[in-house]
Amino acid sequence: MRRFLPVLEWGRHYNRGAFGNDLIAAAIVTIMLIPQSLAYALLAGLPPEVGLYASILPLVAYAIFGTSRALAVGPVAVISLMTAAAVGEVAAQGTADYYAAAIVLAVLSGILLVAMGLLRLGFLANFLSHPVISGFITASGIIIAASQLKHILGIDAGGHNLVEIAGSLASNAAGLNVYALLIGVAATAFLLWVRSRLKPLLIRLGLGSRLADVITKAGPVAAVAMTTLAAAALDLQQAGLAVVGDVPQGLPPFAVPVLDPELWLALAGPAILLSAVGFVESVSVAQTLAAKKRQRIDPDQELVGLGASNLAAGFSGGYPVTGGFARSVVNFDAGAETPAAGALTAIGIALATLFLTPLLYYLPNATLAATIIVAVLSLVDFRILRSTWTYSKSDFSAMAATILVTLGIGVEAGIIAGVGLSLALYLYRTSRPHCAVVGQVPGSEHFRNILRHDVVTSPKVATLRVDESLYFANARFLEDRIIDLVTDGDTIRHVVLMCPAVNEIDASALHSLEEINHRLKDAGVFFHLSEVKGPVMDRLQRSDFLDHLTGQVFLSQYDAFRTLDPHAARAAMRAETARSAAIGHEDQ
Amino acid sequence: MRRFLPVLEWGRHYNRGAFGNDLIAAAIVTIMLIPQSLAYALLAGLPPEVGLYASILPLVAYAIFGTSRALAVGPVAVISLMTAAAVGEVAAQGTADYYAAAIVLAVLSGILLVAMGLLRLGFLANFLSHPVISGFITASGIIIAASQLKHILGIDAGGHNLVEIAGSLASNAAGLNVYALLIGVAATAFLLWVRSRLKPLLIRLGLGSRLADVITKAGPVAAVAMTTLAAAALDLQQAGLAVVGDVPQGLPPFAVPVLDPELWLALAGPAILLSAVGFVESVSVAQTLAAKKRQRIDPDQELVGLGASNLAAGFSGGYPVTGGFARSVVNFDAGAETPAAGALTAIGIALATLFLTPLLYYLPNATLAATIIVAVLSLVDFRILRSTWTYSKSDFSAMAATILVTLGIGVEAGIIAGVGLSLALYLYRTSRPHCAVVGQVPGSEHFRNILRHDVVTSPKVATLRVDESLYFANARFLEDRIIDLVTDGDTIRHVVLMCPAVNEIDASALHSLEEINHRLKDAGVFFHLSEVKGPVMDRLQRSDFLDHLTGQVFLSQYDAFRTLDPHAARAAMRAETARSAAIGHEDQ
Repeated sequence: MRRFLPVLEWGRHYNRGAFGNDLIAAAIVTIMLIPQSLAYALLAGLPPEVGLYASILPLVAYAIFGTSRALAVGPVAVISLMTAAAVGEVAAQGTADYYAAAIVLAVLSGILLVAMGLLRLGFLANFLSHPVISGFITASGIIIAASQLKHILGIDAGGHNLVEIAGSLASNAAGLNVYALLIGVAATAFLLWVRSRLKPLLIRLGLGSRLADVITKAGPVAAVAMTTLAAAALDLQQAGLAVVGDVPQGLPPFAVPVLDPELWLALAGPAILLSAVGFVESVSVAQTLAAKKRQRIDPDQELVGLGASNLAAGFSGGYPVTGGFARSVVNFDAGAETPAAGALTAIGIALATLFLTPLLYYLPNATLAATIIVAVLSLVDFRILRSTWTYSKSDFSAMAATILVTLGIGVEAGIIAGVGLSLALYLYRTSRPHCAVVGQVPGSEHFRNILRHDVVTSPKVATLRVDESLYFANARFLEDRIIDLVTDGDTIRHVVLMCPAVNEIDASALHSLEEINHRLKDAGVFFHLSEVKGPVMDRLQRSDFLDHLTGQVFLSQYDAFRTLDPHAARAAMRAETARSAAIGHEDQ
Repeated sequence: MRRFLPVLEWGRHYNRGAFGNDLIAAAIVTIMLIPQSLAYALLAGLPPEVGLYASILPLVAYAIFGTSRALAVGPVAVISLMTAAAVGEVAAQGTADYYAAAIVLAVLSGILLVAMGLLRLGFLANFLSHPVISGFITASGIIIAASQLKHILGIDAGGHNLVEIAGSLASNAAGLNVYALLIGVAATAFLLWVRSRLKPLLIRLGLGSRLADVITKAGPVAAVAMTTLAAAALDLQQAGLAVVGDVPQGLPPFAVPVLDPELWLALAGPAILLSAVGFVESVSVAQTLAAKKRQRIDPDQELVGLGASNLAAGFSGGYPVTGGFARSVVNFDAGAETPAAGALTAIGIALATLFLTPLLYYLPNATLAATIIVAVLSLVDFRILRSTWTYSKSDFSAMAATILVTLGIGVEAGIIAGVGLSLALYLYRTSRPHCAVVGQVPGSEHFRNILRHDVVTSPKVATLRVDESLYFANARFLEDRIIDLVTDGDTIRHVVLMCPAVNEIDASALHSLEEINHRLKDAGVFFHLSEVKGPVMDRLQRSDFLDHLTGQVFLSQYDAFRTLDPHAARAAMRAETARSAAIGHEDQ
């Protein structure tokens, strides 16, 4: 029971001290979340109040079902962008159908996440590899920033990839609104200044580091307040400045998702991608924060928690949510002790929807766009391209493909291309495993690559070490390598396959070993194995391979060599060379 | 040049001896191929002469471009079935469009195979794992046999899976033709008798084994001759017996594939599957036969050879071909020395199209169906289900899924399901690698699983050995395992990751190691590595991971343990227990 309702666990020990800390954290997160939730709703193409709705019940649901004590759930930038891309495919922005589709998307994501959690399928998210996720987030950051330029310029524009957005901006540039531009640029500059300069300044002025932090996080609220006042005082709306306008006052409605099978089917694919990205982002923040206090999160229960949040979002007129990175770090740093902090934040946002919405009438869209741009610029990280290139060309390709396809085609295509390519490259690498013909290191019982070391070999015995599990993708590669060994060397009477790095032999590889054995037999060559791992050997014993094996299975490669060519092995043991056994980090 | 035209290699040494041997083999294969080519064309839903056409120029093309000295190319059962399934989707059997689509399919396969060969993409065929291929061939054998029952019963029926075929046979059963049934059952019984009893009988009668073999292979020809004579003599066509009828006399026409983009697109998917299955079947026969003479085939050049054959088939009015198993073995056993045997077979078949076709008028379809049924029954192998079940449940699932989907839905769905499931299962297995917490075996420097061995551990040091390469699918699994280790043990100050079986660490896994390092640091625990392989270490040194690593990289696990808890390590070295180091095949 406690596994499915973590609230029962932490709720039992809840006390006044924890409540006090949670309350402070909730107050700070609420101040941060009000402008963010409005801005991300704008990014998702939804009315501003939908962002507020998505920041109330989903937080309560996560407090009940989630396992992280610091995760702050709600609308986030990347998920809002993905929502806009998915919903934009089935309805036109600004229509009731668009909003209805966003609600269906939240419910679908919720169902998917809960189902994956109950079926313990959290591992599936692992297939979003790190290069793909980081490439995707960088590319999304760029697209989000680009998509907000229209609000800064005060023009109408659209598009779901960089090409479309640039084209749309260019063709609508004539409608530029000077007030939007002034407010947008000023707000952006102010927020950048707050982000980089305000905290050191406040500390120099004698404020404590923590208080300075809180004030810094209130930067967007200040920008919102100042530009709203300016717009109201100068009545800039009359001059064509786009403002938020009427925001309905009151608590979230109870929303019933439309039950249109075609719509659900059309949104199923996007919901899978969106849930996966949201889960991966959220769970990695949650794990990082939990580890700081030696706490533990349960990834499968996190799926349930995030799923419950999305269901709550769907049924209360919100849109897809997940755990936000920056917001969770603020929550943690502000001293949140339990998920109750999230529930208290929800109360804060609920109060805002009850009492603050009339004040938002004159809030310029350009200000919200500025807060989005400044927030997402921190997502864009090109240094990782460089370090990934240095580390692995194959990971770099997956990352580059994700970035290029996301920028050039769109978010869904980008993720699919990245995941597809990383799987294909992984399978390609394991399909041509590292193999080495080895010989005995003089004066030792070690065997090393003949191409890299001064080792003793035998004209009668060829030994191949394979550095990978044997499975269908590399089984025939192994056949080719071994048959080549024998056709190259006419004097060879024994082939030894050295298996210290073979963690598995599947049925295809077993078949290939049988074929190798059979073909070597036809060629008059004996086939042996050495250093087979315990579990692999157990499994081989369940087949009849060992009954037909022309040679033996040796415990160690030295045993094999000593048995098959005693003369060469003895000579090697006696030999003393300057370049003797190379151990440790040298190439094995 | 010689790589792309293997004929230049063997052609230079060609002499009268080789010619004599090739001629004998060609004669035997021709006798075997005439009824087969007619029967397989029937199976593919094509006119009988198309089978003959597919047995002329394709063989010449393979003789020029192929690398196997014994492979006999031509129409084969499984590829004929796949052709019927693919072409049946775009045109109605018996129409000119149907034939035109079969030609396009051959040309498409040819282009695909040649392109894969030139790009050296032969390894892609490895993803057809052994359980999938053998399950597929068994299921295809069943479908083929079932699909031929209509000819034995003399009724009209269709269907591309077992359900459809059974339904169609049942609803058309009323049209049963007694003569077809008599001839079909008699021919089947005769062929089964020839296959199992004739050779021993002939040997007992004093014939040599090789001659007995040749006579046995002529069984289908005898069945064809006898039933044709019977049908002609009794004029059974008048009694409703379906016969082959008019077969155009003469050499293959020059066919130009229709250039309909929609048709090409519709056939592209099936062409990929058909090419892959054809290539895998063919190359495995070729490799088995080549190994018997310590010859070598080049899989990428084999793709070119088979591609050239299919192009030749397409442009000469044939349909997709590949290397046949039974036929190649006969060719090899009959003494074929070079691919010239194939060219000579082509001449034999060409002569047949010139002179024999009028004799085929009265050949009953039921006889051809009988030859197919007897031939494909040898493909059906249920014992492999049992042995695969014993060996590996996961391979068994892939095989069972392939069989069930092929039988229940169709050939293409069956292959896709099998390949998809085997990839998914492989990724699932590697995503939860075998890990063991290890301790020192008393009195040795070995470290083994604490759950299986009586080993010495330290309250300060936790060592986890992971038996798999670290990559995106298992990176977060590793994070969880290590964080669990630390949250479980409050006294732990050091975590060592022991990596002797780690053949690779990709960028995602590197990121996870960084996260682990970071989280352990937050928890006041040092993170170390031990027994890192050379190439893996080289790569780690290209990242900045080692700069941030809180602990060290130890050459051996013993070094790590001795350094981190000298007291425990010394105690372990001094300890003497009855159950000391377990080596070799025990679980490691």
